[in-house]
Amino acid sequence: MTVPAETIAWPGAAKCAASFSFDVDAESAMLAVDHGHATRMSAVSHQAYGPLVGVPRILKILARHGITSTFFVPGYTALRYPDVIRSIAAEGHEIAHHGYLHEAMAGLSAEEEAVILDRGLEALERVTGSRPTGYRAPMWELNWHSPKLLHDRGFLYDSSLMDADHPYELTVGSESLVEIPIQWALDDWEQYCFVPDFSGTGLIESPTKVAEMWRLEFDGMRAVGGCFVLTNHPFLSGRPSRAAALEGLVEYACSLDDVWVSPLGAIAQHVRGLGLTPRSVERPDPADF
Amino acid sequence: MTVPAETIAWPGAAKCAASFSFDVDAESAMLAVDHGHATRMSAVSHQAYGPLVGVPRILKILARHGITSTFFVPGYTALRYPDVIRSIAAEGHEIAHHGYLHEAMAGLSAEEEAVILDRGLEALERVTGSRPTGYRAPMWELNWHSPKLLHDRGFLYDSSLMDADHPYELTVGSESLVEIPIQWALDDWEQYCFVPDFSGTGLIESPTKVAEMWRLEFDGMRAVGGCFVLTNHPFLSGRPSRAAALEGLVEYACSLDDVWVSPLGAIAQHVRGLGLTPRSVERPDPADF
Amino acid sequence: MTVPAETIAWPGAAKCAASFSFDVDAESAMLAVDHGHATRMSAVSHQAYGPLVGVPRILKILARHGITSTFFVPGYTALRYPDVIRSIAAEGHEIAHHGYLHEAMAGLSAEEEAVILDRGLEALERVTGSRPTGYRAPMWELNWHSPKLLHDRGFLYDSSLMDADHPYELTVGSESLVEIPIQWALDDWEQYCFVPDFSGTGLIESPTKVAEMWRLEFDGMRAVGGCFVLTNHPFLSGRPSRAAALEGLVEYACSLDDVWVSPLGAIAQHVRGLGLTPRSVERPDPADF
Amino acid sequence: MTVPAETIAWPGAAKCAASFSFDVDAESAMLAVDHGHATRMSAVSHQAYGPLVGVPRILKILARHGITSTFFVPGYTALRYPDVIRSIAAEGHEIAHHGYLHEAMAGLSAEEEAVILDRGLEALERVTGSRPTGYRAPMWELNWHSPKLLHDRGFLYDSSLMDADHPYELTVGSESLVEIPIQWALDDWEQYCFVPDFSGTGLIESPTKVAEMWRLEFDGMRAVGGCFVLTNHPFLSGRPSRAAALEGLVEYACSLDDVWVSPLGAIAQHVRGLGLTPRSVERPDPADF
Repeated sequence: MTVPAETIAWPGAAKCAASFSFDVDAESAMLAVDHGHATRMSAVSHQAYGPLVGVPRILKILARHGITSTFFVPGYTALRYPDVIRSIAAEGHEIAHHGYLHEAMAGLSAEEEAVILDRGLEALERVTGSRPTGYRAPMWELNWHSPKLLHDRGFLYDSSLMDADHPYELTVGSESLVEIPIQWALDDWEQYCFVPDFSGTGLIESPTKVAEMWRLEFDGMRAVGGCFVLTNHPFLSGRPSRAAALEGLVEYACSLDDVWVSPLGAIAQHVRGLGLTPRSVERPDPADF
Repeated sequence: MTVPAETIAWPGAAKCAASFSFDVDAESAMLAVDHGHATRMSAVSHQAYGPLVGVPRILKILARHGITSTFFVPGYTALRYPDVIRSIAAEGHEIAHHGYLHEAMAGLSAEEEAVILDRGLEALERVTGSRPTGYRAPMWELNWHSPKLLHDRGFLYDSSLMDADHPYELTVGSESLVEIPIQWALDDWEQYCFVPDFSGTGLIESPTKVAEMWRLEFDGMRAVGGCFVLTNHPFLSGRPSRAAALEGLVEYACSLDDVWVSPLGAIAQHVRGLGLTPRSVERPDPADF
Repeated sequence: MTVPAETIAWPGAAKCAASFSFDVDAESAMLAVDHGHATRMSAVSHQAYGPLVGVPRILKILARHGITSTFFVPGYTALRYPDVIRSIAAEGHEIAHHGYLHEAMAGLSAEEEAVILDRGLEALERVTGSRPTGYRAPMWELNWHSPKLLHDRGFLYDSSLMDADHPYELTVGSESLVEIPIQWALDDWEQYCFVPDFSGTGLIESPTKVAEMWRLEFDGMRAVGGCFVLTNHPFLSGRPSRAAALEGLVEYACSLDDVWVSPLGAIAQHVRGLGLTPRSVERPDPADF
Repeated sequence: MTVPAETIAWPGAAKCAASFSFDVDAESAMLAVDHGHATRMSAVSHQAYGPLVGVPRILKILARHGITSTFFVPGYTALRYPDVIRSIAAEGHEIAHHGYLHEAMAGLSAEEEAVILDRGLEALERVTGSRPTGYRAPMWELNWHSPKLLHDRGFLYDSSLMDADHPYELTVGSESLVEIPIQWALDDWEQYCFVPDFSGTGLIESPTKVAEMWRLEFDGMRAVGGCFVLTNHPFLSGRPSRAAALEGLVEYACSLDDVWVSPLGAIAQHVRGLGLTPRSVERPDPADF
């Protein structure tokens, strides 16, 4: 296994990239875990806050700073809130694929996963009129067969792996898929999410702690020329004080000349243009353990 | 599904509202989880701290700042501590409904929930001599049939949903119920509660962190013209340092001319007077997932 | 049920009391949960840090500030570390009862609990040569029959309940036992303890957070004239940085003229001398729920 | 049982020692828990970040401050990433033993543990060309038979116990093994690690909190003349902002004249040269509980 290059070239004067991405899970994540959660009116209303209140607030923040971003949308969310999803696209943001019902993909066969991918694609195309080029696995759970499924469906990039500070070309047979890595520390879910019997232990952090931690990692990524990819969920970070903390970070990133703030799709196109040699993530061989 | 209006009109010069509400669960929440907890003398004493020490301390704080508030009281708490509950009412605070034994309502049929609602109503009327107009579901678990049950019993408002920053009229058949939304980040339980084998993982936060987080959300709600609804439990936030932190926030809210500090009942009456068009929370259709 | 008095009289110029108590659980707590933990050499060494390193360090801290305190010692700890326990007593500190193997008392019959109490008493008397007058239930789990068992054995006080800010006389038949309340937020276990497969989720707080939280509660207790009772475990708070944070709090308490820093036994004697009217903790009646 | 000496002599002007050790678990820890995790491409990539990105970054940090350290490497990691492990050794760092697949050793027989130890030794020797003299049990779980197994295989030291602030000679029959104690608060795993269905509850701390806590314990260890042993995992602390926080601590330690920053192997050799009287960790006797 070869250690990957430490960084990649960025456009113009940029020394690093930053993307403020959003996963519009809404009710889908909860329903995927247990269809029975549909009977819980309060829990459903908690998730609905995302598209109803969080998304409009976030769109205004992004507009105030003149940036566009990427919204990963489960097909079910698109069908349930078509106007909301169209309003996101109408502002110039990228709509990307995030499963149909935010399904747990771990352990699914390629055939089962293909059905879900196609169902999600169909929903997004029906609602937005265009086909997404980006994918993020629900729960960031990519299977070893997933890259080929994505490549076969014409996706340009995935954003679900965690083994680098910057994007790379991921080998898929004799071709490749752009991979834009993420990480758990740059996800708002672990910091903020609590819904009894669905997710969380009761830990709910202050936006002060969260914004500090994210800014430190932003500074760290900037120093190493990496790609800072933040993942926020509108049902969580759309709340007033969290949105304000997020806006502080957006403002900071936008104030720096050497940072390229971009949707993930444009980052993937840039990476594709670099003509990088694809590399693999090596699957552990059971014979070795 | 329609995205709701971003804010509503507030009385006079107010640009937002704030309510410091209290859930006087005491022993009820613990006994509802497991009747066997009644055998645990120390655990019972932990819950009893709420009505015995926390409530008197909180009443003094509210009096010092000249405000009234809403206390959600399970029927069992009212019967076990009638003098405490009457002392709350005697100070001009609102007594509202919070189940009989803080029952987990999720999954109950309308008939089962009706029995509990009536038992709680009867207990509150017997102790206070008047019928509550407000309701908050134990664990904030409203069922889809709950709004009709509440409307049928003459309730003006509920405070258990989470899909907006401000109150609204919630459709109930051809009529409506005022809904005053809450949220998990504005609940002291997740921050402070630990009773082995009953609740919590061992996380007990400092009042400094908690007060900071709540103040940020207060500022956020003020900025968007919303309704800040804080939920404290006297057995938790009645402890000296937590009560002091809470008082700091009360003092701050009361110092601002554009904030209407109010019990929830008065907020509900104000909202009712606005003649808003009711809206629904849309129940997920299993056919879609 | 009557709301208890808000405070009690303290000796001389003191307006409140503070006691820095220590539970020398060492291996006992772990072995009580599962005898099989005895096979875990590293885990045993983690608990052994308490008597071997933590206790000597804590004794020096207390000596530096000229105060004495109360050490709750399971009988098994006394038999395993007799020299350590005698060194505590030799410095003038109080040795009190904390079960034999830090047994989970919840659900035990009076007969079963009596056997444990007697076994613990016998061990402490054998090692220290004197009979303890104070008791703290392992896990702060007092049963409804426990106070009578303690009173029958000549104990002056217990320190396991949580329904007041200051000590009181707890009714035992026609007589009473002094109760000195504790609380979960003033225990170092939840803040610091992590031993895989024994205790904790992985949360390990910084002494900065812990000392801040405890000082806030100290200030709060001082303001209301209560009794601040801190519970530390030498295997946790005996670590260098935690001990330093604890010493900072001890120093602060000792610097205040209106704070009576005392072992719990002396506090109990003071309370006994006040001639207070005993009160009960009311046992929930299953007929009511 | 005898209370151990409070400190030991350190070389030259040093009053304490500090070692920044690294456990290069990578995929092994996850695969040991469940071989099935090998099917999770994203989770595997999360662990692979350690050797691919974390280790090179950490090597640069150590080089910038002119120090060497100890890397505990499971045999499987060495076989999967031989170039990475050789690059560590090439920089003058010590490679030590950490099981083959980071196996849970608790409850294993001496025969089962011996097989694992030998398999790990063989892998390290094959990759690095030399035999390690240091051992750290995966999960810090030493069995009572482990010290003899280590001594029989020629190990000089172990670093898995927790009952002292400084190294000591641990009795093994009529001879001994140097023990260099560690502690849970000086491990980055509990602070940072979250991989769903593998490890963690969702708590992810900010490097600010973590660095503060570690520096406090460093200061505490320095004050008592102990041995500060920090344990970092490159897949966690190799992330940019965490590595920066770690570097801050390294820089601080290196700036102090009375601190001996050293690999563990050199510390063990120093301790061996002191001719200390070995002591035991006493195994609890089931007859006593």
